[in-house]
Amino acid sequence: MTTAPHAAAAALTLPPRSQRAGNAKTSPVRDLLALTERPKVISFAGGLPAPELFDVAGIRAAFDAVLDSPSVLQYSTSEGDARLREEVARRYSADGLPTAASDLIITTGSQQGLGLISTTLLDPGDTILVEEPCYLAALQTFALAGARVIGVPYDGDELDLEALDRLAAEHSPKFFYTVPTFQNPTGRTHGLDARRHIAAIAQRRGFRIIEDEPYRQLRYSGEALPSLAELAPAHVISLGSFSKVIAPGLRIGWIRTTPDIRPAVTIAKQAADLHTSTIDQAAAAHYLLSGRGEPALTRIREAYSARRDAMLDALPTVLPTGSTWNHPDGGMFVWARLPEGMDAAESLGRALAHDVAYVPGVSFYSGTPDRRTLRLSFTTYAPDRIREGLSRLGTTWGTGR
Amino acid sequence: MTTAPHAAAAALTLPPRSQRAGNAKTSPVRDLLALTERPKVISFAGGLPAPELFDVAGIRAAFDAVLDSPSVLQYSTSEGDARLREEVARRYSADGLPTAASDLIITTGSQQGLGLISTTLLDPGDTILVEEPCYLAALQTFALAGARVIGVPYDGDELDLEALDRLAAEHSPKFFYTVPTFQNPTGRTHGLDARRHIAAIAQRRGFRIIEDEPYRQLRYSGEALPSLAELAPAHVISLGSFSKVIAPGLRIGWIRTTPDIRPAVTIAKQAADLHTSTIDQAAAAHYLLSGRGEPALTRIREAYSARRDAMLDALPTVLPTGSTWNHPDGGMFVWARLPEGMDAAESLGRALAHDVAYVPGVSFYSGTPDRRTLRLSFTTYAPDRIREGLSRLGTTWGTGR
Repeated sequence: MTTAPHAAAAALTLPPRSQRAGNAKTSPVRDLLALTERPKVISFAGGLPAPELFDVAGIRAAFDAVLDSPSVLQYSTSEGDARLREEVARRYSADGLPTAASDLIITTGSQQGLGLISTTLLDPGDTILVEEPCYLAALQTFALAGARVIGVPYDGDELDLEALDRLAAEHSPKFFYTVPTFQNPTGRTHGLDARRHIAAIAQRRGFRIIEDEPYRQLRYSGEALPSLAELAPAHVISLGSFSKVIAPGLRIGWIRTTPDIRPAVTIAKQAADLHTSTIDQAAAAHYLLSGRGEPALTRIREAYSARRDAMLDALPTVLPTGSTWNHPDGGMFVWARLPEGMDAAESLGRALAHDVAYVPGVSFYSGTPDRRTLRLSFTTYAPDRIREGLSRLGTTWGTGR
Repeated sequence: MTTAPHAAAAALTLPPRSQRAGNAKTSPVRDLLALTERPKVISFAGGLPAPELFDVAGIRAAFDAVLDSPSVLQYSTSEGDARLREEVARRYSADGLPTAASDLIITTGSQQGLGLISTTLLDPGDTILVEEPCYLAALQTFALAGARVIGVPYDGDELDLEALDRLAAEHSPKFFYTVPTFQNPTGRTHGLDARRHIAAIAQRRGFRIIEDEPYRQLRYSGEALPSLAELAPAHVISLGSFSKVIAPGLRIGWIRTTPDIRPAVTIAKQAADLHTSTIDQAAAAHYLLSGRGEPALTRIREAYSARRDAMLDALPTVLPTGSTWNHPDGGMFVWARLPEGMDAAESLGRALAHDVAYVPGVSFYSGTPDRRTLRLSFTTYAPDRIREGLSRLGTTWGTGR
């Protein structure tokens, strides 16, 4: 047996990638972010929390406290750190959704939660419903699972509930994926009445709801709303995350499962990465129990609230006449729509020439995009810098002050 | 629209789990480990590194050093920390396998590497080859990917190369999964000649090799062998991990990809969890560059070497007459085979009655198991405790001193 003659033919005979790998594309937002990282650019394109608001000292103290024993360096259970699950469960229960630690599985960020739910519930070819537009990295995960993705349209800022009902009847989806509070990319929130209807439609049509709540605690105005899991407990699986309220670099999220799929989700987690970092979980639990999380989150909310207001105050003089935009009560994003005949993707080149950036809405649609839309993140900069960036954007459109 | 009448029927109308979720079973070893956690039990069943050998102080210092800046708390790139990838690449290159940082993608443990490779290469129904017996959590991941798994048998401690060639010709597998050095569960290592043949067969038959190397650096005797990636560079994807050489709680591993699948693996990683913990990656890079890793690894090797010797010295007087076992040059496991007519799973109940445990080999087979086999881990206890545990095992079989 000799290798040389065969080695030459090697590249020709390698088996191809999987078909599902061909379904997924690299995130256009991430590609765009690379282009907007020039220091001069004021970028409203990012979706990153503001690092100057991270409680570095508090988190460092938590790591130092837990790293006094080899147990935090050892393998752990797939379900996750017991203290951390108890504390997250306690917070859910205090928030009106009775939850036991055993309902929770800690994940490596809530992005992993999406993958585990896909593994647990989806076979290739299965249909799911998503909001249109929708969180991009979720679309990517569902594509890798081989799912057939159907977007549920909005009527203005309100989900089209009749369309949800009709599409559910027509396609028997495995689930409806929603970010019900301060959605990415639109900042939209389903109101109480919409939540009741979404829950009732799921119960009547027999599909599950995947409720992704990374922004729930970033509320700056208005009243807290019940989670969908409260309204349809057997049908709703909730995802949570510390990425926006403590720090994303921790990569800690969780799935609040329903009992019927808990064993399958646990096996999917075990197969995915055995368990999430023992150290990071222990540090997160210590940090939450230290009481330093609340004042830090209050500082984050106050800063983001002022930044949102700065953006909303400036937009009327910046966006072209005939534009519309929403006024989210929280989260990180404002969603705007340019007047008839304009294209936000076409305008982006001119904006970058003025050293300012945003994300064209076209990136976030599973079906036919509304090319007039764009996403503006307000969390990255202090109010003065937001005003400066929006002024540049106004120059782009000839509307600047 | 009312909810009450529908809520009652909810449980009946929920869509079922995915078919692939039904393919995976919870790990029998993990279930067994739960039973053997009584403090009195001396368990050779575990596969955990010895926590008293973790360099807690060095790792704590690394976390403290990197947690002085908010950047380690922020989102990061899917490929991973630049300094960490450079240092891992430098070590590969120094070890004889030229590697660039761009060849590497950091994963949340090498278990995640198995999942990302499955996503990238496997569609449901695809065939792959594995060693028989094989690492259990890999079998679980391949089952969730819907793969058809075919075991390649051994002839004694040597992989049956003719069977590998014949099965590859017959089934056109997407890949052959191997732990070439100090395999889990058997402690077996493919020798130089076997490696050359495996590489040549892959090149001739046109399948990839997934080379999983968590134990490569745990060598206590004998000469280091070239990696398969050195022998068939275009065909081999290598997985590595710090779990056995620094600490498993960090959950840091990596994939050394080939250029043709690098973009697809990166997308799979992004969809899986965006990226591995920024903090843990930065701390691992700092730890490696601090120079504290080498002396710590030397201590681990010395301790495990003495533990292996203690086990190998005692086994002749412990195992029933007619048993066979191997003498691995490293790793964590010895593989034994009881005489004709005995069943290691049946004996386990009696062993537990004597407060000692091992893993019956039956757990590790993808096809028909050899029920006489068992796995003994030698890393958990100091030599005296190993001798005590093996003496109890001898009592189980009536062979004890």
